Amino acid sequence: MSEIKDKFYNYIQKLQNAITERLELADGSATFKEDVWLRPEGGGGKSRVIENGRVFEKGGVNISAVHGELPQSMQSYFGVEEANFYACGLSLVIHPLSPMVPTVHANWRYFEMYNKDGKIVDQWFGGGQDLTPYYLFEEDARHFHEVCKRGCDNHHPEFYSKYKEKCDEYFWNSHRDEARGVGGLFFDYCKATDKMSMQDWYNFVTEIGDSFLEAYLPIVDKRKDMDYNDEQRTWQEIRRGRYVEFNLVHDKGTLFGLKTNGRIESILMSLPPHVQWKYNHKPDEESPEAQLLEVLKHPKRWA
Amino acid sequence: MSEIKDKFYNYIQKLQNAITERLELADGSATFKEDVWLRPEGGGGKSRVIENGRVFEKGGVNISAVHGELPQSMQSYFGVEEANFYACGLSLVIHPLSPMVPTVHANWRYFEMYNKDGKIVDQWFGGGQDLTPYYLFEEDARHFHEVCKRGCDNHHPEFYSKYKEKCDEYFWNSHRDEARGVGGLFFDYCKATDKMSMQDWYNFVTEIGDSFLEAYLPIVDKRKDMDYNDEQRTWQEIRRGRYVEFNLVHDKGTLFGLKTNGRIESILMSLPPHVQWKYNHKPDEESPEAQLLEVLKHPKRWA
Repeated sequence: MSEIKDKFYNYIQKLQNAITERLELADGSATFKEDVWLRPEGGGGKSRVIENGRVFEKGGVNISAVHGELPQSMQSYFGVEEANFYACGLSLVIHPLSPMVPTVHANWRYFEMYNKDGKIVDQWFGGGQDLTPYYLFEEDARHFHEVCKRGCDNHHPEFYSKYKEKCDEYFWNSHRDEARGVGGLFFDYCKATDKMSMQDWYNFVTEIGDSFLEAYLPIVDKRKDMDYNDEQRTWQEIRRGRYVEFNLVHDKGTLFGLKTNGRIESILMSLPPHVQWKYNHKPDEESPEAQLLEVLKHPKRWA
Repeated sequence: MSEIKDKFYNYIQKLQNAITERLELADGSATFKEDVWLRPEGGGGKSRVIENGRVFEKGGVNISAVHGELPQSMQSYFGVEEANFYACGLSLVIHPLSPMVPTVHANWRYFEMYNKDGKIVDQWFGGGQDLTPYYLFEEDARHFHEVCKRGCDNHHPEFYSKYKEKCDEYFWNSHRDEARGVGGLFFDYCKATDKMSMQDWYNFVTEIGDSFLEAYLPIVDKRKDMDYNDEQRTWQEIRRGRYVEFNLVHDKGTLFGLKTNGRIESILMSLPPHVQWKYNHKPDEESPEAQLLEVLKHPKRWA
């Protein structure tokens, strides 16, 4: 139906290979296990999960391509009537073992909708990537955002500031009145306009996808061998609780998957391996933990 | 405005004292810490939380009484326009340390709505209690349900089977296709009818509340000194993950609190202290863990 759809699906297949290979090298011990699954209504996916690594405690780098009739819950979400759709994307979440290494999330996706004759009536890209540190190293946040900005600036001078802001808005844990992490990029409904063709959007999204390893791996390399103690690990597990709260209470993608019969284990691979909830936990004033919270309460400019 | 409201608030205050005293005795080491909080829009609450006990790893027994203008989100939920309301209740969740001791949840609440002249236009009771074991001791599930049934039978021959079924329906983790636990009772919108006055409902709800310690404590006493190993503890932490998933994805009370500016720490005291998510974890066939899952997939009659 559309060349861009096949091109993008090929792209995410290769990107999944590239990312899992490089993360395995960075870990040096654990490897990704692959699960292939089929969606009864059409399409399926390939989930790759790493667990109990030397560097990565748990992570998933998943691709999927699904199609068929638009589920009813999705019809009302998009404000359309009965339609056929195609959606493919790569989704990843990596939870490192050490509290000194930040968690990272990324997703790049493409969507098509068809009328009864099978003609495309709508199509768009979406995605982004964001960083969730447990201890704030400002140079890491700056590095991540600078890579994001470079990728954006090649396509439009306003993309970075626009999508950085959208990221801060989207990953806002409203019931805690704080950000999930230090942000990155978030974009959605990227549709053809006078100035940006679908091919232009393809070029943009794939450049961002290509920059992911460059954005994240140098941070992993810099932090993975740092010492940490039990209290710092506990702080990481408490903060991971906020990650769970965001994903289960606010994240549209997760809720959408849970309520439309998605593959549960692929959706919930995003949840961290070990998590704690303590009642009313508050870090000491001016501690490194309190410094992180300060930045989460008041998102900063990083690039 | 109504005598029943004051009488019920007095009742839950005394019940909170009774329950926290008896749980402290059962624990033998930790004590409940009390936090009193005020709701800016009217009312407040008294949260009592126990942590790191010999028997109870984390738990809360909270009361609150709030009033004022019905928040907008609640207006659409109840299908009414602007109104004033009063709501009070006791809510408890207890997470024992040992995987052999089940988690328990209970809640008893009363609600009033007023017209512009301050006249009561609607009033009802709600509540229930349910048990979430990590290892299934059938005699424990039977005991819990028998106490529930006795309390119900004193008020109506059909209450137990009706509210047992509602409990199984409500605490259904639909995205996992399994029950949260082995159930108990769940009732809501208990309003005056020809056969049941509000005073009759008061008698019913308080009898159920009074039976809570009798339903739960004998199970604690029987299981708290049993041996368990690391794998059993891991299983408990994985199952606690399902508890988190239910509370954050499906539980109306939790979501309601999170989205209407409730006291977050009192609402989320329900989340377990240590939790794990493993990718696609499945217990061995015919193991005790698999036997529990079997009962969660196919809720049974216990009394």
